[in-house]
Amino acid sequence: MMLSPLARQKIQEMLLDDVGFGDLASKGVSKKIKACIFAKSGGILAGTEEAQYAFTLVGADARILKQDGSKLRGGERIIIVRGRAADVFSAERVALNLLMWMSGIATTTAQMVELAKQTHPGVIIASTRKTILPIFDKKAVEIGGGDPHRLRLDDCMLLKSNQIKILGGIEKALKLSKCSFTKKIEVEAETPREAVEAARLGADIVMLDNFSVEDVRKTVQMLEREGLRDKIILEISGGVNPSNVREYAELKPDVISSSYMTMRPSPVDFSLEVL
Amino acid sequence: MMLSPLARQKIQEMLLDDVGFGDLASKGVSKKIKACIFAKSGGILAGTEEAQYAFTLVGADARILKQDGSKLRGGERIIIVRGRAADVFSAERVALNLLMWMSGIATTTAQMVELAKQTHPGVIIASTRKTILPIFDKKAVEIGGGDPHRLRLDDCMLLKSNQIKILGGIEKALKLSKCSFTKKIEVEAETPREAVEAARLGADIVMLDNFSVEDVRKTVQMLEREGLRDKIILEISGGVNPSNVREYAELKPDVISSSYMTMRPSPVDFSLEVL
Amino acid sequence: MMLSPLARQKIQEMLLDDVGFGDLASKGVSKKIKACIFAKSGGILAGTEEAQYAFTLVGADARILKQDGSKLRGGERIIIVRGRAADVFSAERVALNLLMWMSGIATTTAQMVELAKQTHPGVIIASTRKTILPIFDKKAVEIGGGDPHRLRLDDCMLLKSNQIKILGGIEKALKLSKCSFTKKIEVEAETPREAVEAARLGADIVMLDNFSVEDVRKTVQMLEREGLRDKIILEISGGVNPSNVREYAELKPDVISSSYMTMRPSPVDFSLEVL
Amino acid sequence: MMLSPLARQKIQEMLLDDVGFGDLASKGVSKKIKACIFAKSGGILAGTEEAQYAFTLVGADARILKQDGSKLRGGERIIIVRGRAADVFSAERVALNLLMWMSGIATTTAQMVELAKQTHPGVIIASTRKTILPIFDKKAVEIGGGDPHRLRLDDCMLLKSNQIKILGGIEKALKLSKCSFTKKIEVEAETPREAVEAARLGADIVMLDNFSVEDVRKTVQMLEREGLRDKIILEISGGVNPSNVREYAELKPDVISSSYMTMRPSPVDFSLEVL
Amino acid sequence: MMLSPLARQKIQEMLLDDVGFGDLASKGVSKKIKACIFAKSGGILAGTEEAQYAFTLVGADARILKQDGSKLRGGERIIIVRGRAADVFSAERVALNLLMWMSGIATTTAQMVELAKQTHPGVIIASTRKTILPIFDKKAVEIGGGDPHRLRLDDCMLLKSNQIKILGGIEKALKLSKCSFTKKIEVEAETPREAVEAARLGADIVMLDNFSVEDVRKTVQMLEREGLRDKIILEISGGVNPSNVREYAELKPDVISSSYMTMRPSPVDFSLEVL
Amino acid sequence: MMLSPLARQKIQEMLLDDVGFGDLASKGVSKKIKACIFAKSGGILAGTEEAQYAFTLVGADARILKQDGSKLRGGERIIIVRGRAADVFSAERVALNLLMWMSGIATTTAQMVELAKQTHPGVIIASTRKTILPIFDKKAVEIGGGDPHRLRLDDCMLLKSNQIKILGGIEKALKLSKCSFTKKIEVEAETPREAVEAARLGADIVMLDNFSVEDVRKTVQMLEREGLRDKIILEISGGVNPSNVREYAELKPDVISSSYMTMRPSPVDFSLEVL
Repeated sequence: MMLSPLARQKIQEMLLDDVGFGDLASKGVSKKIKACIFAKSGGILAGTEEAQYAFTLVGADARILKQDGSKLRGGERIIIVRGRAADVFSAERVALNLLMWMSGIATTTAQMVELAKQTHPGVIIASTRKTILPIFDKKAVEIGGGDPHRLRLDDCMLLKSNQIKILGGIEKALKLSKCSFTKKIEVEAETPREAVEAARLGADIVMLDNFSVEDVRKTVQMLEREGLRDKIILEISGGVNPSNVREYAELKPDVISSSYMTMRPSPVDFSLEVL
Repeated sequence: MMLSPLARQKIQEMLLDDVGFGDLASKGVSKKIKACIFAKSGGILAGTEEAQYAFTLVGADARILKQDGSKLRGGERIIIVRGRAADVFSAERVALNLLMWMSGIATTTAQMVELAKQTHPGVIIASTRKTILPIFDKKAVEIGGGDPHRLRLDDCMLLKSNQIKILGGIEKALKLSKCSFTKKIEVEAETPREAVEAARLGADIVMLDNFSVEDVRKTVQMLEREGLRDKIILEISGGVNPSNVREYAELKPDVISSSYMTMRPSPVDFSLEVL
Repeated sequence: MMLSPLARQKIQEMLLDDVGFGDLASKGVSKKIKACIFAKSGGILAGTEEAQYAFTLVGADARILKQDGSKLRGGERIIIVRGRAADVFSAERVALNLLMWMSGIATTTAQMVELAKQTHPGVIIASTRKTILPIFDKKAVEIGGGDPHRLRLDDCMLLKSNQIKILGGIEKALKLSKCSFTKKIEVEAETPREAVEAARLGADIVMLDNFSVEDVRKTVQMLEREGLRDKIILEISGGVNPSNVREYAELKPDVISSSYMTMRPSPVDFSLEVL
Repeated sequence: MMLSPLARQKIQEMLLDDVGFGDLASKGVSKKIKACIFAKSGGILAGTEEAQYAFTLVGADARILKQDGSKLRGGERIIIVRGRAADVFSAERVALNLLMWMSGIATTTAQMVELAKQTHPGVIIASTRKTILPIFDKKAVEIGGGDPHRLRLDDCMLLKSNQIKILGGIEKALKLSKCSFTKKIEVEAETPREAVEAARLGADIVMLDNFSVEDVRKTVQMLEREGLRDKIILEISGGVNPSNVREYAELKPDVISSSYMTMRPSPVDFSLEVL
Repeated sequence: MMLSPLARQKIQEMLLDDVGFGDLASKGVSKKIKACIFAKSGGILAGTEEAQYAFTLVGADARILKQDGSKLRGGERIIIVRGRAADVFSAERVALNLLMWMSGIATTTAQMVELAKQTHPGVIIASTRKTILPIFDKKAVEIGGGDPHRLRLDDCMLLKSNQIKILGGIEKALKLSKCSFTKKIEVEAETPREAVEAARLGADIVMLDNFSVEDVRKTVQMLEREGLRDKIILEISGGVNPSNVREYAELKPDVISSSYMTMRPSPVDFSLEVL
Repeated sequence: MMLSPLARQKIQEMLLDDVGFGDLASKGVSKKIKACIFAKSGGILAGTEEAQYAFTLVGADARILKQDGSKLRGGERIIIVRGRAADVFSAERVALNLLMWMSGIATTTAQMVELAKQTHPGVIIASTRKTILPIFDKKAVEIGGGDPHRLRLDDCMLLKSNQIKILGGIEKALKLSKCSFTKKIEVEAETPREAVEAARLGADIVMLDNFSVEDVRKTVQMLEREGLRDKIILEISGGVNPSNVREYAELKPDVISSSYMTMRPSPVDFSLEVL
């Protein structure tokens, strides 16, 4: 879970975009300062390595006091920064934004996971590709106890209904789509019947897209009747959020995926204070 | 409000990150298709030029049916796309994510603006630098009727309490900070007294940071007593959201700034359907 | 199999690196020319879309006459280019290099596939991550009838012997390594015993690393005895080349992977001639 | 022969492309390890500074034990790496690929040089622009004792037959092509007569393109007869490989150029082992 | 005034462009050297942090002996560099060019400032967007005692005559142009009458574009008559240079802007000498 | 002399840096306009293709009316632009800056060339690596009738006095420096004696660095006495400008190089006017 070269590049770009020609208010301030970042509310901490790296890029030194994944209480110190005032302030906003956003996603993921596991302890809560800053969002989902799902269009084959339609049905789509043996094949089903067909045709993962609770139940029964339930990974997707996740979890799917964590996180608030 | 070179570059990077080696599920599909993007819920539309550009970059052709800023009803068609299936699908997620996120910010901004203007029609609702995708978030705020506030650290001087502390108070800070005559100077005040001091010393904008409604009222009275109220732009900031924005607006500040629109937007849902 | 945004960027960089300030020998030549690229030897064609794009980037127009995957005969015309002489010549080398290299990989892959399928028609010939230009090499392998295998470190989990050693054996390694349900898990085995252990512990793919033919045979027997052979994808890897691929194929593995196609391709020769 | 800024950038991009979101198999492994890279076969070593830099970029520490240009024996240790397991493994493949590929080119170049110098000790063996990774290939050629020839289209003027044809013959081509006095002028000849014409017109270098041994001999005689042989650098090019290089060398050209070293190197094998 | 992320990136690109594959004349020279950069003529020093960073990027160590803004005498030592000869020489030209150019701008700015302040001590000398290397030119202007004016098109609204024309006059232009409350609004006037109109309509800054001294005088009188002179920042622009700056300064404008400093600086000469 | 991929990339970056989030003053102006760029003073035109490309990048259409290298008269129309007002204005400054700067260099170069050729018609006027925007400056020098000299550190070997000192004199330096046969070798001489030594040792180009007119004369005599004058290209460099170039030209050197054209050009003024 360390910083990949891609994450480093993205943090560098965020600084470029935010700083421009330099902070007008601290251009001249070469005074050395010590500052700390503290949490202003509770949640699950994420983004510390990213925040640290932002300070490193401007020549300041940042020490992490609490690790990603920790439970936060309001007021706790997270990172100590030392450096020239102008340098520290030039990376402050980028560092705080990463902490706020990633901790928000980790916290929201942890809530979804907890709710779902109350009903079905083995369920996996997964995110989707509805994500604004993929490299950071996916990591935050994992820190919160969730599964990142696909990272890109190329790392798991997902036949969606649009593609199935164009290719002439699930069977033809599976035959025509060429895919490495190292990749799993997931099929999006629009109806219980399609779900069973996909399982019968050897899909690794079957996703029930926007199914009502009733339709999920019906699908599970059909799959069990054909002895297919254990041959596939069953994923429920579409419209799942904290208010209905337990209801879906009761049907014992393998995975519940949702964009709620990455599109509607409750950002955790952080602040930087000069000591 | 057209696409700046920076926006174009960011959309290009989003595609690079999301597509990777190519969509496994549609690699072979060179069939020409026509598809439409439609809204699945109401809101204020934003992001159409960005979505269009994503399709352009993969060689597909996109025509915008509704302009940014329009009121959306669920089901309405927004964009028509034509191109090879593999191309259209490779840009689909990036296009939809931009539409969802930007329309969410525009919609949330419009709500804040409407609430505030009920009480104080002249008030400006502004965003902050707590933003995940600045170039897109700031544009969406404007489409929703808000003010983008600072774009970077270099386009308006904002003396924050940390900087004032290091520089030895507001007066010294204003003397030491060198800034072009083309830039405004904003001072963040922590107390009513500091707000008055900043106004007296010639700040263009005075920001009341995390003031209670009562303290804002007190500050306004003190400023009026000294004849300073009209010499400055008075900005309220910190903790403002749809539930309390009217209360603050009643005190007739010039500006209310909030990160609520960019950190907690309600994404508007869109979908692409092959016709 | 169209050009991904990543492929486009790489071709752009190749031009930047090769052209520099401009071709000294044709700087002044704005004369419009028509030229053709033809094959100087036989093989399997690959790289036409890449070559075409290189010309597009310098403002020339290129029309593809033969599709990727076609069998080539020496002398055949592949691409017709039209444009200003200076433009055409500035992209010539990059275009030819891509055609030569990719066709070389496709041709070598096709040879390996043909040899292996003579013995075991169902076998998959896969490349490795020993590759110099991944985005182009993997595509050429597919054009030649092979499987690209992993694209990056993040799209299939491969526990190699170094990692297993550090994590304390296969069982612990599988427990400690967290991985999305959308990804397959592959384990590299150093001995027949390890291969069986990996299969027993639920690996999706078991790779026999640098096994002699005898050891592969022994492993298959042990797996069959335990009823595990059909539960896994069995991959042979290490030292496979055209001279021994049939011998390995006889043991009916699911996959034979080799870096021979990407590290030792026989480049196919192409030339550009002004018409 | 140290790392240029361009080489550093290319290694950074290779890591970006290969690592993606991170190595699935070692994401959690923060354990400190010590590993060594050793050669699995003989050859001429190249790529150590490049491999070292790849590890540096992910925060690991690499010490070079043998210098570029050394003769390798199988089993020899080349580089010692220290760092967190996840960091070391994330750069492993890029480092090994650079070593394999560059050592392969250096080794093949050394073989060609040795063969040619047996017959004509003063001959230069040069590479061409048929190269896949120019910045690394050209350096490896030099390490192997060869000459890199042109680096780009802009650092030596090479009038090729296509350009001569368009410009109306060698004489006109030389007059029309404007070129700095700091650059040499090379002319590609298709016939002995053209070679003599180019020498007569003042070309610095005359390249005999795809000449038979007999035609080279004839050209040399014609040049000597006119007293032009010593006024030019005579380069033989086209179809030269280890099996015929001695035959060409016997004709005592100044330079023999070939793409054999960069298009058909025999990669030297390296492996990383945790100690 | 430290190095922003943008400045760092630009210096990196300058090295990439200038070094290419490496310095032919010092490729093999790994000898450690100590060298100094000294000024060959007088002026105001600027560019030391930029020069230092260029050496840092190639692995050499540079110590600054004199600070930006110092008065230079010919022969003074500015920077001491230590490192491998090949590294030091590869960054030499970029470092010297930055010092020469930036010191030239700082020196020319200081001359303009001194001339203008002899007549009107309170006047600001500002640069324009006629600048070749904005990030470095603007900093050098500040070091020389000038004001950088706008940094980009987005950090101060400047309604130029072309825009006013299209929008239908100053009044309409001001109404139609939407702009954040954090930005100042500047209007370019072509006649004294337009200047007064802009002031009356609330422009923050009024720029007299290419006014004769006589027209400036007239404008000031008109503004004073209407009590508007103190409500605006009055800027004179167009054709100002060292020979006429005093004449304009006598009219007591707030600002005189000129592209003379960034388009016609007298570069200060520097040299690197091995010690 | 068309736009190389590198030039295109640089113009793209200039736009990115100058535009930022967009032109505040024309964001809303989608009105289609037609504008022209005209010269405000005389000179030699350069930069038209660069200016045209800047407009192309923002979606506007630009037609060139006069070709690079033409003699300009004040008032002449150079380029016609058509497009949306906001687009045209967003590229205006970058386009004008390129035209001004490049035409300034071309004009100054043409003056130097004319002065020198009055005395010695065969002399070449060359620029140096003291250049701020190499890709554009070198092209402008050529348009003005000059020679670009070295483009980078890697395209001609120049042994400077610092390198000769470290390597132990000219003879050793020439032996130790390895360099492709495709590159020329230039030696910088500090004294007449060194110049003769360099010529004797086979340097292709000998540069007399900062020689007085008297020392140049002496060097030429010494070279002629030894029969070496015609074996080398003799270059005078250092401190040459329009006031002394004729004096140096009288000594009939092959080349006079100077940084005057790229460091002290007189920018030619251009303006954009809406029609």
